[in-house]
Amino acid sequence: MSAPRLVVGVDLGGTSIVVGTVPDDGSALHGFATEPTPVQAGPDAVADRMVEMIRASIDATRRELGAGIEVAGVGVGAPGPLDTARGIVIVAPNLGWKDMPLRQRIAQATGLEITLENDANCATLGEWWRGAAQGGRFVAGITIGTGIGGGIVLDGKIYHGASDVAAEFGHTTIDLTGRRCKCGNYGCLEAYASGPAIAARAVEEIQAGTPSSIPRYVDADLARVTAQTVYQAANDGDPLALEVVRDTARYLGAGVANLVNILNPEVVVIAGGVTQAGERLFTPLRLEVKRRAFKPAVEACRIVPGALTGTGGVYGAVASFKVQRWGAV
Amino acid sequence: MSAPRLVVGVDLGGTSIVVGTVPDDGSALHGFATEPTPVQAGPDAVADRMVEMIRASIDATRRELGAGIEVAGVGVGAPGPLDTARGIVIVAPNLGWKDMPLRQRIAQATGLEITLENDANCATLGEWWRGAAQGGRFVAGITIGTGIGGGIVLDGKIYHGASDVAAEFGHTTIDLTGRRCKCGNYGCLEAYASGPAIAARAVEEIQAGTPSSIPRYVDADLARVTAQTVYQAANDGDPLALEVVRDTARYLGAGVANLVNILNPEVVVIAGGVTQAGERLFTPLRLEVKRRAFKPAVEACRIVPGALTGTGGVYGAVASFKVQRWGAV
Repeated sequence: MSAPRLVVGVDLGGTSIVVGTVPDDGSALHGFATEPTPVQAGPDAVADRMVEMIRASIDATRRELGAGIEVAGVGVGAPGPLDTARGIVIVAPNLGWKDMPLRQRIAQATGLEITLENDANCATLGEWWRGAAQGGRFVAGITIGTGIGGGIVLDGKIYHGASDVAAEFGHTTIDLTGRRCKCGNYGCLEAYASGPAIAARAVEEIQAGTPSSIPRYVDADLARVTAQTVYQAANDGDPLALEVVRDTARYLGAGVANLVNILNPEVVVIAGGVTQAGERLFTPLRLEVKRRAFKPAVEACRIVPGALTGTGGVYGAVASFKVQRWGAV
Repeated sequence: MSAPRLVVGVDLGGTSIVVGTVPDDGSALHGFATEPTPVQAGPDAVADRMVEMIRASIDATRRELGAGIEVAGVGVGAPGPLDTARGIVIVAPNLGWKDMPLRQRIAQATGLEITLENDANCATLGEWWRGAAQGGRFVAGITIGTGIGGGIVLDGKIYHGASDVAAEFGHTTIDLTGRRCKCGNYGCLEAYASGPAIAARAVEEIQAGTPSSIPRYVDADLARVTAQTVYQAANDGDPLALEVVRDTARYLGAGVANLVNILNPEVVVIAGGVTQAGERLFTPLRLEVKRRAFKPAVEACRIVPGALTGTGGVYGAVASFKVQRWGAV
């Protein structure tokens, strides 16, 4: 029996680096580790940390499976826009990077074959391969964190578009005269439904005098309110927090309805911290999509939370390596 | 030299039926005719008229090219939703049809092979094949008339999605608390930028007392104002009409920006009566998209008026026949 062929997956984010080693059938996750991203120390320090973590993951996998394992390469998911053909991170505001030749940097240090792919694309591909979107021919993925990222997976392949920047769902307009977005526009989905936007809507209401238990979760320091605080307060029955979650469902529902009407997907998979709100979010979200989208498109589509919390990016980076190197997952 | 292989294209609309016969290389359009759709006379009368027009188009082509021509079949573009696999028009409100087995009906009467495809998909495929979107790998088409239809063409093939209803661009939300749409929702693009919506916005302003020359174009009968009236008045310099066109560009720009951010297309081709507004519409439209969409996506995309006024649906129906029967255009 030959040893399994393994691929290392790396999920590089502005907050943390996540690494794991996966057999090419996706059946397990070895040498899994998460470490803070040393953003302040600069691009080289981040690349060095990635290299150390890749080596450590391979070593841990070797201890687990035996010395004879074969590592085919490393799939890296990174914030974009990227030039995937040349292996370059063009701009990554959360990392402070511009034109960083990440693929070459990691390849030289590890001697391994490296592929690069957008992180939100990886998260969606991961959910398609091993998570909540398995088997879907037409998949749209939304990743909600500090920002809102997206991915489109058609027949098991990431849809890149004309210039590698498809699926920027966070910056679709749901209210053309609405809230200002960090991108400079008005009414982007991200300005309503990202983690910070959810927190900001709650804080605005509290500052306007709406009674809420939310301040008690943060020692009355409203600057510390996060989306997680809102979900926690909602789970504890706080009326304002419940309203903020319902509004989030309404905003997100308009954005998802647009995807449903444009892409007619089989699955919309929503990943990230927002899934902590559970059915309290997903039930009204599905209702809003049903209200807004075209009936035969709604009936063909399931809207589900991601199933790979914390590991979706790693599985997706591995799957992306497989597609780029071997043509299919 | 063998005779050219010909395909008849039929564009079935709520107002008119358009038919033409096209060599399979798309190099000419023979036996072209337009007739009013006899909607009031019922589905059978409409199908009969289509059959007569198909026969007349083939006869005219035969007179032109000689008796030896070979007609491979007929591509039909029809309003949807359709069941293209079974050749059925599921619902067509403008025709008053439900579950009409159009393909079988035309095939039996003509003895020819028939394919069925959504009309807006055909219009987009036609622009990709012979019109303004030639050569684009990633194409989004918007057809603006009584409603707003859409089509997505990837690598020369129509993208259908999970249940054959992708690209419903008219019912994407641009203002979630905005104008009521005929579909029952609020803030759909169609509620702002369809022909009737453009006319309605002008009429509302006139009724609210805004001075305008528009009433003079319709003998002061505001019920007769159409989008064409507005474009004509704008071309003559009427300030209200110019403002309505600019607003249309803003609304349409938000909708197109969403497509650009989601699909990252090489071409967005806009067809229909709205193209009569020319650069007066397209210049501010491109500006609005540039303002709203992601820079690398904007830079990769050209936004152009359709080049096949009145014939795009016929060329597209022929191209769709080729894809369905022969695998490619």
